[in-house]
Amino acid sequence: MNDIPYRSALIIGAGPGISGSLTRLLRTAGIPVAIAARHIDKLTPLVEETGAIALAADASDASQVERLFAETDARIGAPELVIYNASGRVRGPIVELDPTEVEQAVAVSALGAFYAVQQAAKRMLPAGKGAILLTGATAGIKGFALSAPFAMGKFALRGLAQSAARELAPKGIHVAHIVIDGVVRGERADPSDSTLDPDAIAQSYIDLLRQHRSAWSWELEVRPWVEKF
Amino acid sequence: MNDIPYRSALIIGAGPGISGSLTRLLRTAGIPVAIAARHIDKLTPLVEETGAIALAADASDASQVERLFAETDARIGAPELVIYNASGRVRGPIVELDPTEVEQAVAVSALGAFYAVQQAAKRMLPAGKGAILLTGATAGIKGFALSAPFAMGKFALRGLAQSAARELAPKGIHVAHIVIDGVVRGERADPSDSTLDPDAIAQSYIDLLRQHRSAWSWELEVRPWVEKF
Amino acid sequence: MNDIPYRSALIIGAGPGISGSLTRLLRTAGIPVAIAARHIDKLTPLVEETGAIALAADASDASQVERLFAETDARIGAPELVIYNASGRVRGPIVELDPTEVEQAVAVSALGAFYAVQQAAKRMLPAGKGAILLTGATAGIKGFALSAPFAMGKFALRGLAQSAARELAPKGIHVAHIVIDGVVRGERADPSDSTLDPDAIAQSYIDLLRQHRSAWSWELEVRPWVEKF
Amino acid sequence: MNDIPYRSALIIGAGPGISGSLTRLLRTAGIPVAIAARHIDKLTPLVEETGAIALAADASDASQVERLFAETDARIGAPELVIYNASGRVRGPIVELDPTEVEQAVAVSALGAFYAVQQAAKRMLPAGKGAILLTGATAGIKGFALSAPFAMGKFALRGLAQSAARELAPKGIHVAHIVIDGVVRGERADPSDSTLDPDAIAQSYIDLLRQHRSAWSWELEVRPWVEKF
Repeated sequence: MNDIPYRSALIIGAGPGISGSLTRLLRTAGIPVAIAARHIDKLTPLVEETGAIALAADASDASQVERLFAETDARIGAPELVIYNASGRVRGPIVELDPTEVEQAVAVSALGAFYAVQQAAKRMLPAGKGAILLTGATAGIKGFALSAPFAMGKFALRGLAQSAARELAPKGIHVAHIVIDGVVRGERADPSDSTLDPDAIAQSYIDLLRQHRSAWSWELEVRPWVEKF
Repeated sequence: MNDIPYRSALIIGAGPGISGSLTRLLRTAGIPVAIAARHIDKLTPLVEETGAIALAADASDASQVERLFAETDARIGAPELVIYNASGRVRGPIVELDPTEVEQAVAVSALGAFYAVQQAAKRMLPAGKGAILLTGATAGIKGFALSAPFAMGKFALRGLAQSAARELAPKGIHVAHIVIDGVVRGERADPSDSTLDPDAIAQSYIDLLRQHRSAWSWELEVRPWVEKF
Repeated sequence: MNDIPYRSALIIGAGPGISGSLTRLLRTAGIPVAIAARHIDKLTPLVEETGAIALAADASDASQVERLFAETDARIGAPELVIYNASGRVRGPIVELDPTEVEQAVAVSALGAFYAVQQAAKRMLPAGKGAILLTGATAGIKGFALSAPFAMGKFALRGLAQSAARELAPKGIHVAHIVIDGVVRGERADPSDSTLDPDAIAQSYIDLLRQHRSAWSWELEVRPWVEKF
Repeated sequence: MNDIPYRSALIIGAGPGISGSLTRLLRTAGIPVAIAARHIDKLTPLVEETGAIALAADASDASQVERLFAETDARIGAPELVIYNASGRVRGPIVELDPTEVEQAVAVSALGAFYAVQQAAKRMLPAGKGAILLTGATAGIKGFALSAPFAMGKFALRGLAQSAARELAPKGIHVAHIVIDGVVRGERADPSDSTLDPDAIAQSYIDLLRQHRSAWSWELEVRPWVEKF
């Protein structure tokens, strides 16, 4: 049983994969869920399956994030759980990258997370309760060659997570950063489990949400058993 | 429900606190548990409460650890889950420390864990299955002043955990290192939850054991919500 | 003697303090130096003292950074050494921060460094030689409460530094990130050395520049002897 | 010029390679040097070349380390600079390692360093001055598979270094840990510089010794420009 102590959830950067699995687990636990993405057409199957509501928003735009939270308030109540899954990525040799695309990648991975944390904290602080989970990547701990923008965004996200945890945890808000190390499984079956099963990842998010405040984790890394690290 | 996929457990360095909570959770899940300590008299209440068996062993002595595993094999079957909780600590200015006590502290915190990992791996590798959890401390990540021996032992333990995870995870053995950051609660009630509740810590160990192999964590930090870090 | 193997230097985010000390050491070694800042009036004393040239540029604007490098090329030759010292900082509780100021802080600390690394690499790669030093802070390793934007920017800078080092070092470009941990001394004397002497910091930058390519460091932390860490 | 502010040096775990280069640089700077190893025959060429004195000691034995320092006191004066280079290594699958060899490896890499730090601190604390450099390895930061004992020893060494730096730096003793990431060059020439030149490594040790106390580093990583990390 997932005795999750939060009564409403907003997932930003939704799509299939981790967000889909989280939506299912939260809905199964009876929690109203809003899922946000830039284009919500792709969310229709998940909405129909789970009864979650879909909201359109560009996470890299502060005013859209503000409006997204207001809509969530109106539709399912102020979110007591906020999960940020959006990320921006552009790869290539440093000299070949387009500065505008680099800015946009950092905006989606990190600035959008800041806007979300800010809106979440505005709602959670008065209640003295809430949880904010930020989806990171190995790139937030190790900056790989040919992937500077992703490293910048995911490092920044981790810095935000740490700073927010230090500020908000003593006020009753559980902030955690999850490092996804490996490829998340898509539609294809993978009996060898060499890719991350999104349901397995989502279960670890749920485990974090169920932690007692006397023993909170601010970070969790997950990787397939056979992954090199 | 704790659907833990292991059928026998050995906890080394047992006492009240974390080991007590773990013993209770594992026994409740129907798993035979052996608990080992240098002096087992203190374990009598836990044995009587849970039906665990107590075995005497000095974890810092390789031959005693070898014998402990043999006795565990005989009493409850080869352990599929091994938890190492022992640690040695001596504090003081570097110039005032007794070298013999420093050696003993490192032996209990780290060498004993090596002996346990080795004996565990001997049993788990043929089965292609098992879990080894090593109880660390913040001192394994940050070496504090006036506590060099504890830093040495806990850093070494973390190095062992990482090396063992890299070697054994691809062979089906889940190795994880848990960083306890803060004071573990004793008998005294603590309604403010500013100390770590051992039951809450133990639940996070159980969560690690329930992780699917496609998304294993090799490390987890836990601290009270109000703990500075 | 500072036998620095680079023949032209560009320092971005110049001012007194570290940039001033670096300018002096580089000029003493006979190296032409361009120093860039948003407002170059404040650089006049340093220019008069050292013979460096001052160039105006807003480091958070990609096109201004591009123009800055072109001007440097024209004035002292393509820079073989580029040092990025600019950083943006805004403090306060997460809920009280202005999103626009957060964006600007991250832009100055991290995006500007990306633009500079990109322009530097364009010049250094064909030569197979060069050095890029990025000035970080403890905030790039530890995200403090009430300082999320600085943590985001300095974490992102560190991610950039690591990624750039992995990409560019094997092409002959030494990329290093210097973690300044503590308060940099201003005009006031400090005989106790409890603040960082900018000349001492600058000497460590020079040491990095003098490293042989068979033993390069990609990161260096400096702090006063009495600083808690 | 190497204006090193220490007047006597003891290098433990000496041999060719890093210790040889350090001995040459220190002797060139006019500093009396004692070099210690278990078997000092191999040191004869270095002694003849540099005028250093050789002392026999097993670094993993506390009483021998105590005697080594006493002899150093008598021969060149209490060492103001102590460098610990000894390390113990045994490789292989965890189940195949001999516990006695594991203990010995940890003793040489870490316990011996503790004995040396302790003896050094006893001499340096009254003077309020000194430097202790500890030679680490990547294995102290990342625990590789099939190398658990080396990981344990080098992690423990790093924990010792951090703890000692926190305790001793505010008393005027510079403690630093150098992470050697890569293969140290032997006799064979290596024009591609894909291995670490011991002279280049030694120069970075000297740079650390020359740091002003207002900007000390407690750790430095060095690796060849082409090394993957």
